[in-house]
Amino acid sequence: MDLEIVTVGTELLLGFTIDSNTADISRAVSRVGGRVVRRVSVPDDERQIRDAVAGALRRSRFVVVTGGLGPTRDDVTKRAVAALFGAPLELDDAYLRELDARFASFRRGPMPPSNRSQAEVPRGATVLRNPRGTAPGLLLEGWLGTAVLLPGVPQEMRRMLEQDLVPLVKDRASHEGGGPTVIHSRLLRTTGVTESGLASALEPVLDDLGPVSLAYLPGWDGVDLRLTAWRLTAAQAAEVLDEAAACLMPTLHQWCYGTDDDDLAAVVLDALRIQGLRLAVAESCTGGLVGARLTAIPGASDVFVGGVIAYADELKTELLSVAPGLLEAHGAVSEEVVTAMARGAMDRFAADAAVAVTGVAGPSGGSDEKPVGTVWLAAGVGEREHAVCHRFPGQRREVQHRSAQSALDLVRLMVND
Amino acid sequence: MDLEIVTVGTELLLGFTIDSNTADISRAVSRVGGRVVRRVSVPDDERQIRDAVAGALRRSRFVVVTGGLGPTRDDVTKRAVAALFGAPLELDDAYLRELDARFASFRRGPMPPSNRSQAEVPRGATVLRNPRGTAPGLLLEGWLGTAVLLPGVPQEMRRMLEQDLVPLVKDRASHEGGGPTVIHSRLLRTTGVTESGLASALEPVLDDLGPVSLAYLPGWDGVDLRLTAWRLTAAQAAEVLDEAAACLMPTLHQWCYGTDDDDLAAVVLDALRIQGLRLAVAESCTGGLVGARLTAIPGASDVFVGGVIAYADELKTELLSVAPGLLEAHGAVSEEVVTAMARGAMDRFAADAAVAVTGVAGPSGGSDEKPVGTVWLAAGVGEREHAVCHRFPGQRREVQHRSAQSALDLVRLMVND
Repeated sequence: MDLEIVTVGTELLLGFTIDSNTADISRAVSRVGGRVVRRVSVPDDERQIRDAVAGALRRSRFVVVTGGLGPTRDDVTKRAVAALFGAPLELDDAYLRELDARFASFRRGPMPPSNRSQAEVPRGATVLRNPRGTAPGLLLEGWLGTAVLLPGVPQEMRRMLEQDLVPLVKDRASHEGGGPTVIHSRLLRTTGVTESGLASALEPVLDDLGPVSLAYLPGWDGVDLRLTAWRLTAAQAAEVLDEAAACLMPTLHQWCYGTDDDDLAAVVLDALRIQGLRLAVAESCTGGLVGARLTAIPGASDVFVGGVIAYADELKTELLSVAPGLLEAHGAVSEEVVTAMARGAMDRFAADAAVAVTGVAGPSGGSDEKPVGTVWLAAGVGEREHAVCHRFPGQRREVQHRSAQSALDLVRLMVND
Repeated sequence: MDLEIVTVGTELLLGFTIDSNTADISRAVSRVGGRVVRRVSVPDDERQIRDAVAGALRRSRFVVVTGGLGPTRDDVTKRAVAALFGAPLELDDAYLRELDARFASFRRGPMPPSNRSQAEVPRGATVLRNPRGTAPGLLLEGWLGTAVLLPGVPQEMRRMLEQDLVPLVKDRASHEGGGPTVIHSRLLRTTGVTESGLASALEPVLDDLGPVSLAYLPGWDGVDLRLTAWRLTAAQAAEVLDEAAACLMPTLHQWCYGTDDDDLAAVVLDALRIQGLRLAVAESCTGGLVGARLTAIPGASDVFVGGVIAYADELKTELLSVAPGLLEAHGAVSEEVVTAMARGAMDRFAADAAVAVTGVAGPSGGSDEKPVGTVWLAAGVGEREHAVCHRFPGQRREVQHRSAQSALDLVRLMVND
């Protein structure tokens, strides 16, 4: 089942915004038998939107339009598509009441008049509820074909993609002859190993992968491996992906912490939860990032107790009982200090496990002996403790991100050990 | 001078790759008088590439095509565009020798035969040297208009963009009547106000903005306002942007924390630094995010001392001296507790300022009285202290992100007060 995407926004064509919606939509519909055959981006201009949507419908009869649904003057997508379908805009009283109620519940005062336009709906269109924003999505059907209008704000779009668009595409695809063929892919997420290190290690097993392609995707979290099965039925695709993953896993062993959207922080929390262990953190150069990663996971509170952002050295002494002598003798970025920080956090917070980070995130503070990117990590689990030193590439934020990821991975490896 | 972009790649339409080339090209050409009026993405399919390029030339007479120039079978862009221009492919002996020499110099052994195809050039086309790869760019001119073909690998594309495309667009734009005109823009970054609230507040001054357009860009950080000056000379553009910003600022007043790439964390650190104040944090539901935001800024250490991630209630008592009675009487998410947390952090770390956050990030933990999204914030600066309660929309990560941004903003407002 072919479809096209039209993304609307002058911002996109000025290069102020990167269109990430197309990738999200494409991946989601590919999984259920849809195939995106073209994407067109046009500015917030009524005529250009209408032309682009008309062209997409002429070629493919199904178009997804994102952006330009907000309450401000430059949001003209709804008007453009309504005109193309010959459907006048009419006030939807039920949706207007809903908008009023939502504004009231957020205690933001009465709804500004400009928002009233968001309750105007092309005659005959279906309103798609937007749980994360005030601009509703719209589904229009006519002799031209089908148009689905979604908001351009990625969080709002993604929610409605899963809730409305994916079921619709799945249904259409399954009514086309021969049953849907899909493109499925799976990520194997690794950390603690470089792209070339992975490529060398995997070389001997590549011929056994079967009918899937393999791509290396390096990033700050580590290197993701993407396995893709092309144009098979859903059952066949799942099978060849399972086989390919099983073929790679013995070589990936401890580097692989999960698949697809797995977050290492969630993996760590799960591993600790199973063993009934509670974790504390002591962060210097990451300044709270390890805690933030953990806390971002729903249900973190039964495992993660909290910790200390010991950015200044006084706090390392005051809150983590790091002896001033250690700091003087070895410096804040040292095995001795990071180990004392982890032990201090564990004792202080009566936790079963702790992880500590101290390093030189840059751009200043580096030396010949400890250049920017030098980071000491230590983890303690029960009586065991382990410290490692890394030299990370990149600038401050990359060093901090890689440090947090490595800190989490150190806990994972020790808990699973 | 109008132009269009065609990006080629099946990966783009599967959602495996996000097209960042369009944004890079758009920003670069806007600075020298070009205006991207449409972007089309098509798969690696000869007919679809030809159709998309033909459509772009018909509308705008100038098209930039990226991707599909490599040596593999699925790279068909050159063939498609050559066919459209009626130009047969011919071996360019000089470029072939250059390719041979480059393979030899990279010590990659002899050039694979597949690379020979990269020295085939449409008759009459100009070869654009690619210093970072083996696929040359191409410039084709004919009665249809002008087509510039660039590689899809971003690092290769960016280099040739500056080296070849920008000078060409600048030259064309300056030969259009009246000298080159450019598109300049400026962001005014606001927080603590909704998009529709801003729109209502700004309505009365919109007519005084002069020849600039205004766009609202809502996100988790707040709402950015983008002012854009269209098709003026560089000097005129700067002037009308200054005037438009000056026109908006009295209305934006305390909501606006900066311009363009300004990060609120950096703004807060600067404001504290000027007054010689040192800041501590006490975070519950944000779990370290406020600290991480501050620590991400180079040079944070002279202002930010650190703090406590008091995720578990015991830590609020133990480290921040929050009386257990307060927690029992009012609950952890309350004005009393958040104020005690801020005061506790300030005292404990001998800081001049502190900010505390406690809230219900969800998905669980909400109640009728304190639903998910309820967040109490308190800041203390010297003797002054102030607490506010928000009800944020969104899921866990959004609530956490908005809480951190609001916490930073509360410090900014108090320090500037």
